[in-house]
Amino acid sequence: MTSLPHSAPEGTPAIGTSVSADDFKRAFRGHPGGIAVITAYGENGPVALTASSVSSVSADPPLLIFSVSALSSATPTIIAADTIVVHLLDADDISLARAGATSGLDRFADTTTWSRLSTGEPVYHGVRAWLRCKVVSRMDAGGSTVIAAQALQVDVERDLEPGESGAALVYHNRAWHRLGEHSRLDD
Amino acid sequence: MTSLPHSAPEGTPAIGTSVSADDFKRAFRGHPGGIAVITAYGENGPVALTASSVSSVSADPPLLIFSVSALSSATPTIIAADTIVVHLLDADDISLARAGATSGLDRFADTTTWSRLSTGEPVYHGVRAWLRCKVVSRMDAGGSTVIAAQALQVDVERDLEPGESGAALVYHNRAWHRLGEHSRLDD
Repeated sequence: MTSLPHSAPEGTPAIGTSVSADDFKRAFRGHPGGIAVITAYGENGPVALTASSVSSVSADPPLLIFSVSALSSATPTIIAADTIVVHLLDADDISLARAGATSGLDRFADTTTWSRLSTGEPVYHGVRAWLRCKVVSRMDAGGSTVIAAQALQVDVERDLEPGESGAALVYHNRAWHRLGEHSRLDD
Repeated sequence: MTSLPHSAPEGTPAIGTSVSADDFKRAFRGHPGGIAVITAYGENGPVALTASSVSSVSADPPLLIFSVSALSSATPTIIAADTIVVHLLDADDISLARAGATSGLDRFADTTTWSRLSTGEPVYHGVRAWLRCKVVSRMDAGGSTVIAAQALQVDVERDLEPGESGAALVYHNRAWHRLGEHSRLDD
C-alpha cells in the first residue's frame, strides 16, 4: 500500500507530494531502535527522557545524534543545555528505560539511583554505558529537534567483546525486546 | 572504565576533553540499530548502502534522519542526490542488508531484484517498507554527513498490527539479530 490518495489511479503516483502522518508511522512501526536515556540539569533541576533515535555519527571526533519530540516535558531543558548525558541501556536497565518513557513520573525521586557529576549533569548509576556530551548543533525539524553532540567523557560499565551477544535492549512496535544468542542469525 | 588518559588520577575527570575513538566505539558497540538500505541514482548509475542510523524525527511533516560515512563508495552520490529511497528492512530482507554492507559488490547486478521508479530512483522489490524522500538538509559531522529527508511516497509491503512482533532485523556488535516473540520482554 502506498500513501497515494484513494482517488488517484493505481500505478500513477503523484510526484512531489508528501505522505500522511499515519502512513509514515506505519512504515516506521516496524523499524526497531536501541534505547538511550538522556539527562540534563536545568533551572528547575534534573530532567530525563527515553529516546530510540540515538546513533553514532563519527568516532573521530566522537559525535552522536538524536532527536527529541516537543511532546516530552524534558525536551525544552535538553534543547537549552550546553552539556547532557546520554545513557546507552541494555536489558538490565529496562526499569530506567520505562521510567524515562512514562509521562508524569518523577524520574529522580529515588536519590540512590543517580547523582550529579562534578560538572553538574545528572547520571544514573549502573547503566551499561554513558557519555557526557557537549551539544554542538540543534536543528528544528517539524516539531522535533535534531541534536548533534560531541562526547567529552565516556564510562562503559558492561563491555562487549567483538561478536558477543550481550543483552541489548530494543524497542520495536510498542514493545521491548532483549537480544542475545536466542535472537542471533547465522553468519 | 572511562576515557580519561591513564596518567590522570582516578576520580578527577578532566573537564572539557574529548574521548578517544576506541572508547567511543566501545560504548556504541553495545547499542543496537534497525537496518535500512538507502539508494540513489547518480551520474554513474544506481548506488546503495546499508545504514543502521535511520530514525524517524517527525510524522507531520514526515521527516527522517540518518548519517553516512565517507568510507562507503555510495556516499558521494547519496549526498549529492535530490531524492533517495530509504528501504526499511526486516529479517526476510537480510540478503539485501548484507549486500549493501559488503564493499566491492555490484548491488544491482541482478536486474530482477530492483527497478527504477517513474521519478528515477532505484527501488528494491519485496522489502518490508520503503520511502521515497526529498533530501532537505545536509550537515557535515567529522568525516560523516547527517542527512535529513522528507518522505514523498511510502510503500509498506509487510504491515504490523500494534504490538505484533513481526520479524524485525537488528544489527548489534557486528552480528545480525531477528526480533520476534522469542526476544520479547514481558510488559
